[in-house]
Amino acid sequence: MVEKYVYSFGGGKADGKTELKNLLGGKGANLAEMTNLGINVPPGFTITTNVCTLYYENNENYPEGLDEQVEEALSKVEGLMGKEFGDVNDPLLFSVRSGARVSMPGMMDTVLNLGLNDETVQGVIKQTNNERFAYDSYRRFVQMFGNVVLGMDGAEFEEILEKKKEKLGVDYDTEIPAESLKELVGEFKAHIKETTGEDFPEEPKAQLWAAIDAVFGSWNNERAISYRNINDIPHHWGTAVNVQTMVYGNMGENSGTGVAFTRNPSTGENKYWGEYLKNAQGEDVVAGIRTPKPIAQLEEEMPEIYKQLTDIFEKLEKHYTDVQDVEFTIQEGELFMLQTRTGKRTARAAVKIAVDLEEEGLIDKRTAVGRIEPQKLDELLHRRIDPDAELTILAKGLDASPGAAAGKVVFDSDEAAELGKAGEKVVLVRTETSPEDIHGMAAAQGVLTSRGGMTSHAAVVARGMGKPAVAGCEDIKVDYSVEKFTTPDGTVVKKGDFITIDGGTGNVYLGEVPTIDPEMDENFEKLMGWADDFRTMQVRTNADTPEDAEAAVDFGAEGIGLCRTEHMFFDEDRLPIVQDMILADSKAARESALEKLLPMQKGDFKGILKAMGERPVTIRLLDPPLHEFLPDHDELLVEVTKLKAGGKDASDKEELLKTIENLHEMNPMLGHRGCRLGVTYPEIYEMQAKAIMEAACELKADGLDVHPEIMIPLVAHINEFKLMKGVVKKAADAVIKEAGVDLSYTIGTMIELPRAALTADQIAEEAEFFSFGTNDLTQTTFGFSRDDAEGKFLAHYLDEEVLEKNPFQVLDQDGVGQLVEIGVNKGRSSNPNLKVGICGEHGGEPSSVKFCHSVGLNYVSCSPFRVPIARLAAAQAEVNNPHQ
Amino acid sequence: MVEKYVYSFGGGKADGKTELKNLLGGKGANLAEMTNLGINVPPGFTITTNVCTLYYENNENYPEGLDEQVEEALSKVEGLMGKEFGDVNDPLLFSVRSGARVSMPGMMDTVLNLGLNDETVQGVIKQTNNERFAYDSYRRFVQMFGNVVLGMDGAEFEEILEKKKEKLGVDYDTEIPAESLKELVGEFKAHIKETTGEDFPEEPKAQLWAAIDAVFGSWNNERAISYRNINDIPHHWGTAVNVQTMVYGNMGENSGTGVAFTRNPSTGENKYWGEYLKNAQGEDVVAGIRTPKPIAQLEEEMPEIYKQLTDIFEKLEKHYTDVQDVEFTIQEGELFMLQTRTGKRTARAAVKIAVDLEEEGLIDKRTAVGRIEPQKLDELLHRRIDPDAELTILAKGLDASPGAAAGKVVFDSDEAAELGKAGEKVVLVRTETSPEDIHGMAAAQGVLTSRGGMTSHAAVVARGMGKPAVAGCEDIKVDYSVEKFTTPDGTVVKKGDFITIDGGTGNVYLGEVPTIDPEMDENFEKLMGWADDFRTMQVRTNADTPEDAEAAVDFGAEGIGLCRTEHMFFDEDRLPIVQDMILADSKAARESALEKLLPMQKGDFKGILKAMGERPVTIRLLDPPLHEFLPDHDELLVEVTKLKAGGKDASDKEELLKTIENLHEMNPMLGHRGCRLGVTYPEIYEMQAKAIMEAACELKADGLDVHPEIMIPLVAHINEFKLMKGVVKKAADAVIKEAGVDLSYTIGTMIELPRAALTADQIAEEAEFFSFGTNDLTQTTFGFSRDDAEGKFLAHYLDEEVLEKNPFQVLDQDGVGQLVEIGVNKGRSSNPNLKVGICGEHGGEPSSVKFCHSVGLNYVSCSPFRVPIARLAAAQAEVNNPHQ
Repeated sequence: MVEKYVYSFGGGKADGKTELKNLLGGKGANLAEMTNLGINVPPGFTITTNVCTLYYENNENYPEGLDEQVEEALSKVEGLMGKEFGDVNDPLLFSVRSGARVSMPGMMDTVLNLGLNDETVQGVIKQTNNERFAYDSYRRFVQMFGNVVLGMDGAEFEEILEKKKEKLGVDYDTEIPAESLKELVGEFKAHIKETTGEDFPEEPKAQLWAAIDAVFGSWNNERAISYRNINDIPHHWGTAVNVQTMVYGNMGENSGTGVAFTRNPSTGENKYWGEYLKNAQGEDVVAGIRTPKPIAQLEEEMPEIYKQLTDIFEKLEKHYTDVQDVEFTIQEGELFMLQTRTGKRTARAAVKIAVDLEEEGLIDKRTAVGRIEPQKLDELLHRRIDPDAELTILAKGLDASPGAAAGKVVFDSDEAAELGKAGEKVVLVRTETSPEDIHGMAAAQGVLTSRGGMTSHAAVVARGMGKPAVAGCEDIKVDYSVEKFTTPDGTVVKKGDFITIDGGTGNVYLGEVPTIDPEMDENFEKLMGWADDFRTMQVRTNADTPEDAEAAVDFGAEGIGLCRTEHMFFDEDRLPIVQDMILADSKAARESALEKLLPMQKGDFKGILKAMGERPVTIRLLDPPLHEFLPDHDELLVEVTKLKAGGKDASDKEELLKTIENLHEMNPMLGHRGCRLGVTYPEIYEMQAKAIMEAACELKADGLDVHPEIMIPLVAHINEFKLMKGVVKKAADAVIKEAGVDLSYTIGTMIELPRAALTADQIAEEAEFFSFGTNDLTQTTFGFSRDDAEGKFLAHYLDEEVLEKNPFQVLDQDGVGQLVEIGVNKGRSSNPNLKVGICGEHGGEPSSVKFCHSVGLNYVSCSPFRVPIARLAAAQAEVNNPHQ
Repeated sequence: MVEKYVYSFGGGKADGKTELKNLLGGKGANLAEMTNLGINVPPGFTITTNVCTLYYENNENYPEGLDEQVEEALSKVEGLMGKEFGDVNDPLLFSVRSGARVSMPGMMDTVLNLGLNDETVQGVIKQTNNERFAYDSYRRFVQMFGNVVLGMDGAEFEEILEKKKEKLGVDYDTEIPAESLKELVGEFKAHIKETTGEDFPEEPKAQLWAAIDAVFGSWNNERAISYRNINDIPHHWGTAVNVQTMVYGNMGENSGTGVAFTRNPSTGENKYWGEYLKNAQGEDVVAGIRTPKPIAQLEEEMPEIYKQLTDIFEKLEKHYTDVQDVEFTIQEGELFMLQTRTGKRTARAAVKIAVDLEEEGLIDKRTAVGRIEPQKLDELLHRRIDPDAELTILAKGLDASPGAAAGKVVFDSDEAAELGKAGEKVVLVRTETSPEDIHGMAAAQGVLTSRGGMTSHAAVVARGMGKPAVAGCEDIKVDYSVEKFTTPDGTVVKKGDFITIDGGTGNVYLGEVPTIDPEMDENFEKLMGWADDFRTMQVRTNADTPEDAEAAVDFGAEGIGLCRTEHMFFDEDRLPIVQDMILADSKAARESALEKLLPMQKGDFKGILKAMGERPVTIRLLDPPLHEFLPDHDELLVEVTKLKAGGKDASDKEELLKTIENLHEMNPMLGHRGCRLGVTYPEIYEMQAKAIMEAACELKADGLDVHPEIMIPLVAHINEFKLMKGVVKKAADAVIKEAGVDLSYTIGTMIELPRAALTADQIAEEAEFFSFGTNDLTQTTFGFSRDDAEGKFLAHYLDEEVLEKNPFQVLDQDGVGQLVEIGVNKGRSSNPNLKVGICGEHGGEPSSVKFCHSVGLNYVSCSPFRVPIARLAAAQAEVNNPHQ
């Protein structure tokens, strides 16, 4: 049997239903559903999305049998309407619309009045006694057909229309008389012939198939493809085609058209929200010639229709248990529903609506929790640019750290720190930042750099601080010497000028753009509370400072999943000591430097452990390659070369240069870092273990119940872990013994290398916890250096659809996820009590959080500002896929 | 029940046997076996290797029950010998020896005459009527005990002995009278007391336990540990202790001692081989005071004993079906066997012996094939330093490419090429080599560099050429300006001086050291023929030039598993064109450079395909990051800085520098390389596919049946492969169509990233073959950059036993091997016809080859000189673990 390609609806009965959304597209499925609900929908039929897929698979040919099914569906509509398609006395006219699973503005929208030609137009005149209406419809059809079906430039038709109006001396389309409209039809057709070389198709069936072709063709036009890329819509989904009987809102004062939401989509308020126009077609509302009226006025103007409409609103909301976005037309006093779909809404509205619907008893708490797209919570958590502000973008960089920040431009970190302390709002602008800029970044509202990617120093540190940042903004040229930057259009921004950056989009604006506050109201709290009730997976945060830790607790973090100890090393006061440690030529010299660092690290840990109280705190021992703490090689090389060329003494600098060159690595990401540093210089990890435990013991002695968890990074082999565990345990136990307190702690490891995941059973025999470091695991599993990939080829890969998503943002479940699953299963097989979490950036990305739930992780850990997102995603995962 | 820790032997019956070698050590197991064979072995007992393990696990304490078992075994020996340990009238005396699974010179060797003290020595005198013998034995015992059991300096005892001889005015130990020997015992004991603070233990049991302690202790002395590290012996094996009744070869002219091999261990000749001394103890043979006689003379001197001995030789060879290395003692006309073990032999002897034993019917062909350690074949395949030559090492570097080479030192590649063409033997010495040195390397006998690791340019290229190389020889300081190098001891080597390098050890010698030719004789051919008969896995080679390809075919290669196309790009004539291609600022400019490269690449491919004839040739498309083809960044930066400092125009160079900086990558190993280049610049792969197919088509038209296989490198995601397959197939099919020949080819991929292995089922749906690139797979699975690891921390890891072996040399079966297995199984699951091979360096390493067999690979591919090794290892794998 041939597959069913065409689904009819009309006359209170439909082949389709909402559940067939993937097959019929959102619009088609809902037209069928409304029909079955007894709502008055103009009859028609839907050609399935499968046809679209087959069409592309089969070299743009339709599957066999489609023709017959379309014919049959057409007859059915003719039967229901008592009219015939192409009938010169009383023609049936159609609209043809695309309709994918999700609404896609990039695609062909609509062709109206299809079926009109020089003959059938006479039938319309006969039936309506309205020649002007008939020719206006005909004129619109030919124009739309030329534009959307034949792909001609719409402006050219408008030009012909404008000329006609000029000639007639009228201002509005509505003032054009029937005769001139008839002329316009001829002129439009001539223009079509001239442009395409083909006659306008008079035959209604030919029109229909041309429109169907155009809908399917529009699935792969440039705009549609780029929309799908931006919105993560798979390209294989395809679109359906909806062919529906025309109804007219422009047949007099008892006609009209409108769009409405069953609740306010901006605030979530439970009030009908929308607008309508009497005696108008849908496109008139859009054209903006007449100002539509608020929907509430319809109650006065057409009380009966209003009653019917709001009854339908109630019915639809009850049926779909969610806010609906509808289109309707009133044709000579009869109300037709043309579309219903779930209403898009702001994050704030989404939260309020979900809470309200639950309270109204329409949905339960589980459903309410499932209604919010976790990613959208981001809107509520950061200061952001007022969405209503009129903006001119000055420059665009990478969206390195979300949030909006406005302030005076400052180019120097010391100056930023000074002004910041004095209460001034500043934005720090640098070509790139380095550890010496930390204090300036901390004092600034936000950071803007002209170089560097998503993992540049500026980006990483700003995300850690929860500070807005735009990085790699190559549009701006920074000139420190005159304290200015310039943009491609020649704008010069001087020190002290105001700019605003939006770290969520990468946009930079001139001046102080209005921003709005985070919106965590009581509805938000209520909803997150429900989420926490459902959630089985814990949510921790990645935090390196007491301030971050406190912010994260406010956002609901239940512990620290990753406290990096190296950011502390970059501190202004410490860097020289860290450098002494690195340049030490003996173990004794190294230990003496480490001794100086110990009380500083201890202070850091004390602050963080105190901030987290009884919550667990996972502290990762030193991870980055040592050369990261040394001056830049190339700058030093230039300096030395210059000194020597000038005949000056460069021996000291040359010595340093040599050391840096000795530490140089071909691939530092895969080099001497992580526990490899601990294996070669155990005294470093020993010092860190001591600092952690001294901090913990002192707090414990003060009566605080702290839970440090010490994490060994970059383990590839069980022996590395064993060795480092030995070093850490010895140091830690000695501190506890000395302090005489009763303190427990655990020792675990990052699983961030494929080999660690593959041999997790061996490692879990020794480790008390695992934390998947999916950033590095993604790098090694793909063999992608994030820095290089994002700079060199990843954009191209995403454009060309070699990869569907950036695997550094969205966990690659097929590959990296497979290793995570192997790691969890093998780890638990040898150690059933193993605690397993994730601390890569994926820990705050909703689809990745859901994956983590599905493989049985105990917790995810993410940056403070993503904690609520992770909480919600974790709750949704549990609701959709309860843990055993 | 307590575990059996002690195994007795003696009186024709033993608890142990050969099969218990792991438990009893080689020596103990064979003593037991000989006893059971009815051979006369002095009775004794063996304490198991398990005791050693338990001893170390339990903080150097013995397991419970050991004491009783030792007592019991002691009684048994006393019963058999009719003597008692410590009996003052007729004492039983023991030797105590260590004995691990394999012989280990680093450990404690032997304590003889244990059980002697001031009282029991009287018993010996009573029994032997030989006071001198008794005191000489006692003196030796105290000396040995002090040295090997108590760890004192042996030279100090020798000094006391020498003083005594001086005082007596004698030259030889044998001239010292009994009375003086007695005095020496007292003086030795006093020296022990003085040094250790403890009295010499008179109590025999105390002596025995001290000796046992010392044997177990010696397992972990420095020498033993370093020996195990060098010889890949696991540290957890432990040693056994053998306690055996003393017999004496020095009890007169009807006594003696000797060592023998049942065949010549150097040549393999089937003749008894060894030496003996009459009236002597084993140590006298070693001491070299008297010259031992060849074993054949024993037939004349003691015909009866000789007959018994050779009967035992025959018995042992038949029993063990292999050459034995034995020790024996004749005590007053009675022959005792003290040890038998499999005789160590040279590679040449090993081959001859295996072939002979098969022909004698002692072993079958399978066993013969299994008898040769594949790695040892290396000795036969390269010119090497004469093992008998007396050598002084000048310097030591990395063993970068095996083989010995001697020649005049030359520092310049052009000069090397000139002299080489003129027939002179030269060794090219450079700080490091670059693509510009290729012609010099090719003309030289060998290459020596002072910098760079195992993957430096010099090392990689030399291995490819099969040319001896010592790399990273930091002992030498090269000064090009005066054409000299110096070594730490001040030796200056000038241009034209002769040196010899040994790329198999990394040693550099002054002068022309004698070298010996490869030894691939008819026995070798016979054995390899058998190996090939058993082998089910194919062996291919990695070769980039027709010369390499031909050499590999001579070594038995059955195809090319990896032909790299980038080495061709480094060619002097081509590099500028390659650079043009890279610096091209448009696709058109790039294509024009590629057009120039095409005929050159085509010529390369033609040569290689021709050399391989009908054998398959896998050609990998361009893999390395493009910046590898550009000038060195730092050098250019210095140049530009100097030019600018001198006020000169540097704009051109600065432009180039900028391009290089743009191409710079943080982690090039994980950067824009492999198929990522093909995805971003498809025209490169298109050109290469065209060049390959044009070459193949022309050969095919000439009647040669060629089989090109095109390989896409560094695939992480099926989409990359699909895209590149499309590009290659289109170009290739067009060439075939144009040529009008009937040529088939395949397209496959490297599996060298964890993600590719994990998603191999998806990739195999499109790929016709897989080749595991285990070099990169090891880098990504471990997260080790080979360059950085080998330079920075891997040596430390191996020293500290964090890793047992260098995973870049020996495939890490636990981790990387797991991915290979996953890749093979998943790949075959979706494509049962998938051809799977390996082309990393592991393809020529025996244990890795065996692993490849076990997971069902179709072939391994390795450098030409390792092909025989791989053939043999593959045969052994099949013999031991037949393929289903």
